[in-house]
Amino acid sequence: MKSIDFYFDFSSPYGYIASCRIDDIAARHGRTVNWYPYLLGVVFKTTGRRPLPEQPLVGDYALRDFARSARLYGVPFNMPQRLPISGVNPSRAYYWLYDQDPQQAKALARSLYAAYFVDGRDISDPEQVAEVTAALGIDRAAVAAALQDPKVKERLRSETDAAIGRGAFGSPFIFVDDEPFWGNDRLDQVDRWLTTGGW
Amino acid sequence: MKSIDFYFDFSSPYGYIASCRIDDIAARHGRTVNWYPYLLGVVFKTTGRRPLPEQPLVGDYALRDFARSARLYGVPFNMPQRLPISGVNPSRAYYWLYDQDPQQAKALARSLYAAYFVDGRDISDPEQVAEVTAALGIDRAAVAAALQDPKVKERLRSETDAAIGRGAFGSPFIFVDDEPFWGNDRLDQVDRWLTTGGW
Repeated sequence: MKSIDFYFDFSSPYGYIASCRIDDIAARHGRTVNWYPYLLGVVFKTTGRRPLPEQPLVGDYALRDFARSARLYGVPFNMPQRLPISGVNPSRAYYWLYDQDPQQAKALARSLYAAYFVDGRDISDPEQVAEVTAALGIDRAAVAAALQDPKVKERLRSETDAAIGRGAFGSPFIFVDDEPFWGNDRLDQVDRWLTTGGW
Repeated sequence: MKSIDFYFDFSSPYGYIASCRIDDIAARHGRTVNWYPYLLGVVFKTTGRRPLPEQPLVGDYALRDFARSARLYGVPFNMPQRLPISGVNPSRAYYWLYDQDPQQAKALARSLYAAYFVDGRDISDPEQVAEVTAALGIDRAAVAAALQDPKVKERLRSETDAAIGRGAFGSPFIFVDDEPFWGNDRLDQVDRWLTTGGW
């Protein structure tokens, strides 16, 4: 059966919460999930949107809802001191590793998300990305070099363009057989869609 | 037990869908719901947000999600030709009637929402508002006069200011014992919060 496509930004709390849920939901329906980090900052240039915490009124609610959503789904969560941060370096590391081992890339994405949203580490920093990657048994110097590799840089640009071209504009953004779902708060609908094939 | 407060804009599809669900959810927990129409256009001046259909990329998804959400909850829905429209006149009619009969005001809000989101009538038009109101057995000339009454105009302004002052910034926006919930997609959480008293 066709995989589910899961788009996310490494700086997105809702993307993080969804990352802790999506594979389990898919597995209940015999599906696998392809993970695609991309850059919401680039998307915002098209949509005109801004990060939730920067919006008056919305920001306070968002902080409360991030934590409340994490509690609801039993996901460990500590609001990082700085949010949003750039997802460039963690996303580059992801795609570099993906081309060698997709499963290990997914493990890296989980580790990076946990480093940021549980341990409060600034994963926009290439040093932190290299350290998190090295903890998975991957050569630290190779990661550090990859973050500056023009081919890796171009790969992230083209993945971000492809995501936007497909209609993704938020984090998380999920496609089930080309049906788009935006938001951690659509995962129950994703589950239902996988059960019923639509409504 | 304390009532639930339900804030909405008459031009909001998610507000409409939530209006078809919120009283049933509350009733299961022995609660009643106070309805407060307000003006998202005023809120947007504070938050910097824009109506979803006007946002590139987001707009196409929103149209799809409005209809998909309505189908999911079994709510009749036809996308109006024009959206958003001004909620000024329907909101004024609501508060004018509310001061005479809160229950009838809620019936009017339901009729206005249905006129717009089912029958495709432009409820920003004072003539349409008067007609929908008259269909509930209320004197049409009195409604028409109320829409231009300075006291009624001021009432809507102060209700909108009060909603913003309380932290509401979207439609629907719900308070359960001062706990805020934004969006039709939070009604399942509202239901759960009413069951558990929080998490």
